[in-house]
Amino acid sequence: MNKAVVLLSGGLDSATTLAVARDEGYACHALSLDYGQRHRSELAAAQRVAQALGAAEHRTVKLDLTAFGGSALTDAGIAVPTTPAAGIPVTYVPARNTIMLSLALAWAEVLGSRDIFIGANAVDYSGYPDCRPEYLDAFEKMANLATKAAVEGSTTRIRAPLVDLSKADIIRRGTVLGVDYSLTVSCYQADETGMACGQCDSCRLRRLGFASAGITDPTRYRRE
Amino acid sequence: MNKAVVLLSGGLDSATTLAVARDEGYACHALSLDYGQRHRSELAAAQRVAQALGAAEHRTVKLDLTAFGGSALTDAGIAVPTTPAAGIPVTYVPARNTIMLSLALAWAEVLGSRDIFIGANAVDYSGYPDCRPEYLDAFEKMANLATKAAVEGSTTRIRAPLVDLSKADIIRRGTVLGVDYSLTVSCYQADETGMACGQCDSCRLRRLGFASAGITDPTRYRRE
Repeated sequence: MNKAVVLLSGGLDSATTLAVARDEGYACHALSLDYGQRHRSELAAAQRVAQALGAAEHRTVKLDLTAFGGSALTDAGIAVPTTPAAGIPVTYVPARNTIMLSLALAWAEVLGSRDIFIGANAVDYSGYPDCRPEYLDAFEKMANLATKAAVEGSTTRIRAPLVDLSKADIIRRGTVLGVDYSLTVSCYQADETGMACGQCDSCRLRRLGFASAGITDPTRYRRE
Repeated sequence: MNKAVVLLSGGLDSATTLAVARDEGYACHALSLDYGQRHRSELAAAQRVAQALGAAEHRTVKLDLTAFGGSALTDAGIAVPTTPAAGIPVTYVPARNTIMLSLALAWAEVLGSRDIFIGANAVDYSGYPDCRPEYLDAFEKMANLATKAAVEGSTTRIRAPLVDLSKADIIRRGTVLGVDYSLTVSCYQADETGMACGQCDSCRLRRLGFASAGITDPTRYRRE
């Protein structure tokens, strides 16, 4: 059984990605990053999701990105926007996917895994630069020069099975694959029980996705 | 004054790199990674070097790579070789430079810095894949797709001023620039006071470098 490292934030996209990887027959080694994110309840969600979707293993690595700040998710002094705005929003975390993929690359090399799955999406997303296909391709090229495994002939693939899907399509796909979305947390300011604000960018995209897929949204919203 | 992020391990190469960056007129923001390395005294060395070379700031980020292991530097069960061998040695740490450059990229974006300095060297080195120019070029390409700063038109440069120099040339260059190499620790199994083994790959390359440069080696070796 081939091993895959699957980045698992605890949100809707990464849960679906884990289900896709499992469906492809991989033994899934799920990796979460405790980076000091505002919405810490996503980490508990990641653990629930890993278990529910039969991950071979789930590890949470701690790395304090609040030391750098520069994002509403890592600096308590920057508020999470509750109305859409033009451009890349302040919830963008500098180099987050690069850091997470780097950690996945390290673990994949130790595991002898050639496949790294990430739930990046460039359709119904917040415009984060490190979710775009051209970024993911460039990371893959770099990864294939970075490691001992690469020098020895092993090829690493960065797999982003959701990258071209709409949020509704992601939800449909995950539902078919048995994802229980009530276990996931997308909200940037979810409370400690995982209750969502219903107003941030991430809530907005998620909510529209369920509506557009015609699937009942199991999210627990605080303000209703 | 332009800001640069300088990766600083506490060894000879990164100390020289910091001196080069300072000499070019940058305000240097030095970054070290406490990854659970066997030779922890290099972290204290990094602090001394940052201070001696007038870094604007020095931060040490903690990230436990012993959780993954896979290297003599992150797994106490794998011994550091004391004789040269063919191939990439077991002191290779999976994806280490990728992880460190990713963290530097995050910090650079927050600082508004376009330049990241790394002491990678591909001449008198241990054959680590993530020290080669083609790897560094690929990281730079990826970095310029990864960030909000890149989307907004800022270009990140990965600067490796030592990449083509011999160890002797690095030592000569650093000596001219006022680097006090007695503050640095290269040894993979340095004791807590920074005393070197004199036998590992890193000691061997360093020792040959001083000899070949005709400069007195200030390293304190344990076994003499």
